[in-house]
Amino acid sequence: MKLSDGIEQAIHCVTMLAAAPEDGLLSAAALAEFHGVSPSYLLKHLQALSGAGILETVSGPKGGYRLAKGAETISLLDIVLAVEGREPAFRCKEIRQNGPNPLPRRYFKAPCQINAAMIRAERAYRDELATVTVADLNAEVAEKDDGAIARRGCMFFEENLRHARR
Amino acid sequence: MKLSDGIEQAIHCVTMLAAAPEDGLLSAAALAEFHGVSPSYLLKHLQALSGAGILETVSGPKGGYRLAKGAETISLLDIVLAVEGREPAFRCKEIRQNGPNPLPRRYFKAPCQINAAMIRAERAYRDELATVTVADLNAEVAEKDDGAIARRGCMFFEENLRHARR
Repeated sequence: MKLSDGIEQAIHCVTMLAAAPEDGLLSAAALAEFHGVSPSYLLKHLQALSGAGILETVSGPKGGYRLAKGAETISLLDIVLAVEGREPAFRCKEIRQNGPNPLPRRYFKAPCQINAAMIRAERAYRDELATVTVADLNAEVAEKDDGAIARRGCMFFEENLRHARR
Repeated sequence: MKLSDGIEQAIHCVTMLAAAPEDGLLSAAALAEFHGVSPSYLLKHLQALSGAGILETVSGPKGGYRLAKGAETISLLDIVLAVEGREPAFRCKEIRQNGPNPLPRRYFKAPCQINAAMIRAERAYRDELATVTVADLNAEVAEKDDGAIARRGCMFFEENLRHARR
């Protein structure tokens, strides 16, 4: 089981956009350069975040991305589901119904005990991710910052931030 | 994020072997036929379970697989890690160290807050899977059984069970 590299990139981009002053926009190219990642791969994930209502896309040559809602309302779970899709990691194929001698159908009304246990674990995973917001992450980073992280962000915003009316 | 189909197959095979009487062996071919799955694909996962110390392999034409230890000591987590590997789903590439203007190295001694949050979620997932043993699963199935599941198992064992000394 492996999450795509897009998850890390998407979370960093959303936290960066959450730190952007004055409702500013950042282009996919600027975000890709800052994080040293492939622009085309990143674009796919920014579009997924936009489709999930986490980012807003402003089109045009002066366009870019900004948060579609408050950083305190966006959880890590929202970002993971936007990038990876909402399907659970364990996808029961009901192989207990296979083979030359399957069970009577009455046994298949309830989910198999294996599926139920796997779903409970996935719920624990998702519940934990849901407790962490983008605002929390940025606050944690700010706590550890002796000024260098803020300066680096400011330089990036000065060079790259764009503005458009809501 | 998707777990391989091998997980479902591996869990069903281990629960089946846990129900086998008299320390009996089942061949990969019999297990594949019973579950209606590809023998070569299943074999890969049976070997992984054997490598992880969950199953014991007895080689030869009358060989097969049996549990290497008690069903009450094998958890769903053991099976998932045997099949999927032990690496976490989120594999931080430290992209915060990328780009034309990286932060000073002192910031990279501790894991990034994002990685820490993703690891907490994975721990919750694994902790939940660790609470469920193969013995628990078989007990739950037996509780719902009006006899048809046990009969189906018995027929399968009568036709396919092999024996070898420990």
